[in-house]
Amino acid sequence: MQDRLKPFFDSNGVAIIGATNKPNKLSYGIVKNLTLYGFKGGIYPVNPKVDEILGYRCYPDILSVPDPVDLAVIVLPAGVILPVIQDCEKRGIKAITVISGGFKELGPQGEALEQRILQFVKDHDMRMVGPNCVGTMSLHTGLNTTFISGVPDTGGIGFLSQSGAVLGGVVDYVKGKGIGFSHFLSLGNEADVTETDMIEYLGDDPHTQVITAYIEQIQDGKKFISIAKKVTQKKPIVLLKAGRTSAGARAVSSHTGSLAGSHAAYQAAFAQSGVVEVQAVNDLFDVSQALALQPLPKGKNVAILTNSGGPAALLSDSLANNGFTMADLQPETMQALREVLNPSAQVANPVDMLGGAEPHEYERAMQLLVDDPNVDVVIPILVPQALVNPVEVAEKIATISESTDKTVIAVFMGDSLVLEPRKLLHRRKVPMVVFPESVGTILGAMKVYANWLAKPTDETATFKDVDPGVVRTSIDQALHLGSMGEALTRPLLQAYGIPLIPAHIAHSEDDAGHLADAIGYPVVMKINSPDILHKSDLGGIQLGLNDKAAVIEAYREMIVNIKQKMPDARLEGVLIEAMAPRGQEVIIGMKRDPGFGTMMMFGLGGIFVELFKDVSFRVAPMTRSDAYDMIHTTRAGMLLTGYRGQKPADLDAVVDTILRLSQLAVDFDKIEEIEINPLLVLEKGCLALDGRVILRQSAGLYGGIDEKNLIRE
Amino acid sequence: MQDRLKPFFDSNGVAIIGATNKPNKLSYGIVKNLTLYGFKGGIYPVNPKVDEILGYRCYPDILSVPDPVDLAVIVLPAGVILPVIQDCEKRGIKAITVISGGFKELGPQGEALEQRILQFVKDHDMRMVGPNCVGTMSLHTGLNTTFISGVPDTGGIGFLSQSGAVLGGVVDYVKGKGIGFSHFLSLGNEADVTETDMIEYLGDDPHTQVITAYIEQIQDGKKFISIAKKVTQKKPIVLLKAGRTSAGARAVSSHTGSLAGSHAAYQAAFAQSGVVEVQAVNDLFDVSQALALQPLPKGKNVAILTNSGGPAALLSDSLANNGFTMADLQPETMQALREVLNPSAQVANPVDMLGGAEPHEYERAMQLLVDDPNVDVVIPILVPQALVNPVEVAEKIATISESTDKTVIAVFMGDSLVLEPRKLLHRRKVPMVVFPESVGTILGAMKVYANWLAKPTDETATFKDVDPGVVRTSIDQALHLGSMGEALTRPLLQAYGIPLIPAHIAHSEDDAGHLADAIGYPVVMKINSPDILHKSDLGGIQLGLNDKAAVIEAYREMIVNIKQKMPDARLEGVLIEAMAPRGQEVIIGMKRDPGFGTMMMFGLGGIFVELFKDVSFRVAPMTRSDAYDMIHTTRAGMLLTGYRGQKPADLDAVVDTILRLSQLAVDFDKIEEIEINPLLVLEKGCLALDGRVILRQSAGLYGGIDEKNLIRE
Repeated sequence: MQDRLKPFFDSNGVAIIGATNKPNKLSYGIVKNLTLYGFKGGIYPVNPKVDEILGYRCYPDILSVPDPVDLAVIVLPAGVILPVIQDCEKRGIKAITVISGGFKELGPQGEALEQRILQFVKDHDMRMVGPNCVGTMSLHTGLNTTFISGVPDTGGIGFLSQSGAVLGGVVDYVKGKGIGFSHFLSLGNEADVTETDMIEYLGDDPHTQVITAYIEQIQDGKKFISIAKKVTQKKPIVLLKAGRTSAGARAVSSHTGSLAGSHAAYQAAFAQSGVVEVQAVNDLFDVSQALALQPLPKGKNVAILTNSGGPAALLSDSLANNGFTMADLQPETMQALREVLNPSAQVANPVDMLGGAEPHEYERAMQLLVDDPNVDVVIPILVPQALVNPVEVAEKIATISESTDKTVIAVFMGDSLVLEPRKLLHRRKVPMVVFPESVGTILGAMKVYANWLAKPTDETATFKDVDPGVVRTSIDQALHLGSMGEALTRPLLQAYGIPLIPAHIAHSEDDAGHLADAIGYPVVMKINSPDILHKSDLGGIQLGLNDKAAVIEAYREMIVNIKQKMPDARLEGVLIEAMAPRGQEVIIGMKRDPGFGTMMMFGLGGIFVELFKDVSFRVAPMTRSDAYDMIHTTRAGMLLTGYRGQKPADLDAVVDTILRLSQLAVDFDKIEEIEINPLLVLEKGCLALDGRVILRQSAGLYGGIDEKNLIRE
Repeated sequence: MQDRLKPFFDSNGVAIIGATNKPNKLSYGIVKNLTLYGFKGGIYPVNPKVDEILGYRCYPDILSVPDPVDLAVIVLPAGVILPVIQDCEKRGIKAITVISGGFKELGPQGEALEQRILQFVKDHDMRMVGPNCVGTMSLHTGLNTTFISGVPDTGGIGFLSQSGAVLGGVVDYVKGKGIGFSHFLSLGNEADVTETDMIEYLGDDPHTQVITAYIEQIQDGKKFISIAKKVTQKKPIVLLKAGRTSAGARAVSSHTGSLAGSHAAYQAAFAQSGVVEVQAVNDLFDVSQALALQPLPKGKNVAILTNSGGPAALLSDSLANNGFTMADLQPETMQALREVLNPSAQVANPVDMLGGAEPHEYERAMQLLVDDPNVDVVIPILVPQALVNPVEVAEKIATISESTDKTVIAVFMGDSLVLEPRKLLHRRKVPMVVFPESVGTILGAMKVYANWLAKPTDETATFKDVDPGVVRTSIDQALHLGSMGEALTRPLLQAYGIPLIPAHIAHSEDDAGHLADAIGYPVVMKINSPDILHKSDLGGIQLGLNDKAAVIEAYREMIVNIKQKMPDARLEGVLIEAMAPRGQEVIIGMKRDPGFGTMMMFGLGGIFVELFKDVSFRVAPMTRSDAYDMIHTTRAGMLLTGYRGQKPADLDAVVDTILRLSQLAVDFDKIEEIEINPLLVLEKGCLALDGRVILRQSAGLYGGIDEKNLIRE
């Protein structure tokens, strides 16, 4: 619960410290906005040089401001802010919004100043929004501490933005379109109050139906996942993340001074916490609006009702690209449509009423479509025609939509001709878009959220049959090496119950022969050396050895050849392994992410991993259903489930292996990276055929240099 | 040349047959539009029941209309149109626009009527636009035969649409945004004048700088490619194709009564003719506008100039996703930026001037960026701020853009605040978008066109060392089989100079032994039977046979086993093949497309072909550079060119094989499908390891049923 954030949204009195009476100053804009939108609390400008602003008495300092006051908005040069906050604390004000910039975003000096302020805030149980932000708007209380000119319509979308400019640009974009907001929050540098705090607050806010966010970075990934997971059980979170590419990530860090984690980690976190990610600013509001106004689609069958074939064709493409299909209308529905529509109309889906379609035709046809049990979603399309009033069409659509629990999204092509119908539709809870292609994106996002709600809420899996002692000892012994090859990695996997292909290390020709006899033929031989990364290039792998003589011969040759090619390599014997049966090869791995910690990876094995980038990630610890999800989002997952008539492989065994490896990684943070490649998946069970570990050296990966600085550069 | 289309765009006099004086009728709208936009020719309403419309004398029939008249626009019921067109012909009018519907789009009866009209038009050397269309606008002459209310601004985009509704919806959308058009053309059923005719005409039209089209189907694919190839050497063609998915294609065919070809064929045709394809209606105009106003990017290095970090980060993502990179600014540029900008500004790319940036800062910083030789493209971003006039910023941006040959695209976030700047920017030839994400799409499309202009214009390759006689005989002999397996296909490939793995058919054990001796060991054996599709399932393949004894034994076993498992299969010996060396396996194939004819395919071999859909297509006949292009658009192409340190394979040999197979397919239309799978690509040369052919039976694939009807259903 984030009760202490309440004064930011529903305050009894606001002090504006640094307010002026010059209309071209930002602080004047803030005072003005506080007076414009129905805010009922006290308004107290603070400035020793001014008597009055916009009819409000101006106070010389915060200490002289009368009760009630529980929020201070500060617009002063960075250097003088700390003592002012100290005064606020004395005055009993626990909530502070710092609009001013001049902190972390300007470099080390500003960062130090920000840290001092933050320390004071934390020490005194205060909460601070900003610094370097545009302020916040609470549309339902009228509490608007921004200097943005104008406000959007009031409604159910709670929007938070890590960029004040994006927030400002969006206000102008959404104004007058009937898109309704509960909050409009600029978070600035997030020194204290973070995006996650705000998401938690909005999760409990009764006015907010959908939480919408523009995000550049999430500093505490684990906390985000834990909060978002709970909030998304109650309401959707729709999020646009800047810095998805490495160029974008560099642009983010150059302007916020923060290091954004990898986008793969963000995507994993979103998938595991039910967050709906979109790719563009306009998608953000299209999707949020639909989630706020309409019920989730109950299935994937869409009926299109149109007065023109072209847009219906574009819409069909966008539906197919987002996993929706054209509903097969019942014969009765088509028969009834034939009776109410123009005899030339096309009554199969898409239902094309032709250009002259009148409002009452929209009404009757839509009613028939929502009544058809084969239909989950109805999309009415209007291309404005000379002789048909689009507002009347909008009215009919809204009336039908209000009477059904099926999803309705309207497409009205145009600009000036669709302004009025849009306002009407949005007011009556039908989302409207201008281009048919947007509908696929919107429905796709709604389906992501519907799937999340339907996902089993299982607990993180923990295996008891593991032996951390063995792992600890092995790691300690290998720490000086920095990495562990197959032979050293096998005991770790075994200790955590991961099935391995049978193998033993031979230290002599005779040894090799005896071990091969014990394992059974054919066998595989692999050189074991901490200095050899690419064994096959040096002739360090021999496959399909069928008898003892061949094994002894191969051992001798291998040692001689490698000593010749790489005289300095430390040779620590040869692994004698059983020859693997036929199966599907996948890769399972783990790496650490600066923002989200332990990241598990699953994908197709071999050279294709990199060529097709067919991998998915999840943040550990994870649940069984997380593991199934991560498999099913890859093509490798399609192969395992029996693609092209092949027998399905043992998915449960792969899930077990992912979860056991994840537990190993969570238990031992000295493991920097671990990889099983390939994991051979059989019809029953699976086998790790090779594995390796990279260890976190005590001095850090980069010999004592601060990693963060290194990467940020 | 399409000189006979001129009266549609620049007429001396227009007759409107079926004009009325009732303001709520479409034909009244047409007369009105002819009077509104500066059309200089004669305007002659024709209607025996009316004397005058909008002050223009109305004539009882077309024969009584005075000179000059060279275009007739017909708005009459479908059934009475043919005699009217006959009168037009008598009157010497060769150009007819039929607005009325009631033809092919309504079914067989309407189609027959349309055909009768078309026959008359063709017999008398006339040209007809429509029927079932919205008419055409020529913005530079003011000749507007549509009933659409309002016109877009005049400029260089020639827009044609196969959907009248899309055209109408777009007029309202583009109006008032300063997007300039030369033509706005609705083509309806395209009985006579097609999209390709219009593209050819606009290709020669001096007012048209970019041709933009909404397309649902192209009926004559070969003609389209040949015309588009020439036009795109002069000006870009930007195209949105509905029916990209099978659901979309069904929606298109249900409302036009036409069969759309596969989208793979369209994509191939676009790639081979330099057409820029976009995915959404708004991309269509964003991209066309940029191509009309700005020079093509000379490289991929982009500088961003912004007053806010967030949009710059979103823009960076969209650039990276479209193959552009952030320019490395020269140290001198950054030094100079530091001198002219706010001391807190970020002077590395993206250049962030911070929120208060003034018009003169935009001007100076942009000048420095266009002067930097490391920069090819400059993207200024403005998020409107309280104290900065966006129109002044737009003016400065326009001034710099006018002085440089580097590409400039502006991002102004917002809606009402950016109306005026947008008009100014567009007037002064700077494209402006509202969302940063659009820029990547636009630049990506511009790069597609720039690459096309840079592509070598080589001729279709034709090999002389081929032996069609052998192929003809082989096909005739196999025609009754319907298909040809590996043994029958090999001579066809050989006759067209495609290198094959050495192989011979053995008809006895002894034969097998002798042939294997001659080929050299190890060998591969494959059963040869027209009845066995999946050889390996029946034990019909044996690999790695190392000596004569093994071959003889394998022959015996194979025949016995298969006779047991499939007693009725016709066994025609066993293929004895050399064992293939190691190499990269790809697939090369050909199939016929209803719209575009011979389609060549290239992709990764094996099970991954279908899993990753890593294939590309081109329409035959093709050039060498087409073949290189098709390889390079696949991941398989990445593998061949030396992915991950592997040695590059012989691309030239693959290109030769594609072109030779293409020539074979063009020469023999009885080949319905042909496939080499796998083609083994070596460091030097390549080898077909297997191949098969499906033949077009004389009775048609579906035993005499018209294929088109079958598929359309």
